[in-house]
Amino acid sequence: MKQYEKAVVILSGGLDSTTCLGVAVQEGEEVYALTFDYGQRHRIEIESAKKVAEYYRVKEHQIATLPFLRAIGGSALTDKEIAVPHSGVIANEIPVTYVPGRNLIFLSIATAYAEVVGANAIYLGVNALDYSGYPDCRPAFIESFARTATLATKAGAMGATLQIKTPLLYLSKAEIVTLGTKLGVPYELTSSCYEGGSVACGVCDSCRLRRKGFAEAGLTDPIAYSERIDVV
Amino acid sequence: MKQYEKAVVILSGGLDSTTCLGVAVQEGEEVYALTFDYGQRHRIEIESAKKVAEYYRVKEHQIATLPFLRAIGGSALTDKEIAVPHSGVIANEIPVTYVPGRNLIFLSIATAYAEVVGANAIYLGVNALDYSGYPDCRPAFIESFARTATLATKAGAMGATLQIKTPLLYLSKAEIVTLGTKLGVPYELTSSCYEGGSVACGVCDSCRLRRKGFAEAGLTDPIAYSERIDVV
Repeated sequence: MKQYEKAVVILSGGLDSTTCLGVAVQEGEEVYALTFDYGQRHRIEIESAKKVAEYYRVKEHQIATLPFLRAIGGSALTDKEIAVPHSGVIANEIPVTYVPGRNLIFLSIATAYAEVVGANAIYLGVNALDYSGYPDCRPAFIESFARTATLATKAGAMGATLQIKTPLLYLSKAEIVTLGTKLGVPYELTSSCYEGGSVACGVCDSCRLRRKGFAEAGLTDPIAYSERIDVV
Repeated sequence: MKQYEKAVVILSGGLDSTTCLGVAVQEGEEVYALTFDYGQRHRIEIESAKKVAEYYRVKEHQIATLPFLRAIGGSALTDKEIAVPHSGVIANEIPVTYVPGRNLIFLSIATAYAEVVGANAIYLGVNALDYSGYPDCRPAFIESFARTATLATKAGAMGATLQIKTPLLYLSKAEIVTLGTKLGVPYELTSSCYEGGSVACGVCDSCRLRRKGFAEAGLTDPIAYSERIDVV
């Protein structure tokens, strides 16, 4: 029988992180959910995160505010001057929606949280296939971070290893929603749209990727979209 | 001639980070100073940081607020329930003033800042000799972080290397103040006391270490102390 353990789950309120939380719950973890308010234009996802955390009755849900990321800008997600792409093309380069240092900062704060609550694992819903253009979603980064975090902490200095669990790393979006549907993940509570309106736009790159995933998996996306486009 | 370069300097307003800034200026860097307001009980150091940044006329001085570190606690520096030690003994174990994940988080945010302003170096005034009990001051951690940060960023993905410069890593406190005095570092503007009063207490571990450093170097500490003790 699996030992009862504590884990921090980084929960944005989007499709991937919510699936990741579903996996953690399935694995019997006692979940400490951690959501970041970093001035993202799609702040509505924080409300989704609260609903998801409540749905799963997590042990604790912390919302960490990072006003600095908006202050320095540098991304379409934190800087109103940079438009969110609606290209429909996930190019093989680093997108303007890349937020400098985001996963590095998220994982670092999650490491501190894990240390304080006594968790030995952090779940992160990164994905190396879709959006492979984000440098901080690469497996090499995740592995390197785990080593660094173990060196940084008191627990690590005393011999414990901090595990960074990325159950979605090599799954396609279709495989992610298939897995989540099997686990009963409440996708109706999630939000993925970069525009951050009360109804998903349906045409930003994030909406397109999500719709394509459900379509390929032959499943119905339970959320509404304001624009009905044909997903290729 | 040294090329003109940009660097982020993590500036707490204490003796070490201010010396570190003095070194960066001496090396001809264009400085982007970064100070953290993480709910530390010695918040007065933020005022010192502002004065120091102004003294050096840095290119930019950002103050990043991290309310989350205080929210989770776990350290004598962020949790009022845990007393600051006045032992006078720097034991060979991790002190209660250790803040979980602090340097990991500070360096991560500095990495994001460096990426946005186009800096390729971060200066951090860590020291492996005094307070060697802090896991996140160890050279192995710093080296590992530099690799991780390079993997995390757009600049790194494009071939640049982010350097973490720690000019004080192997210096004793006496050597640090000797170096800083030679560079004209304005120690009268700095504050080191963990208690955070308007006048340094003189007896907390941080005050003791500072006074011992000046005494051993045969130099006069320009700041005032409320309690006059003999420094051993």
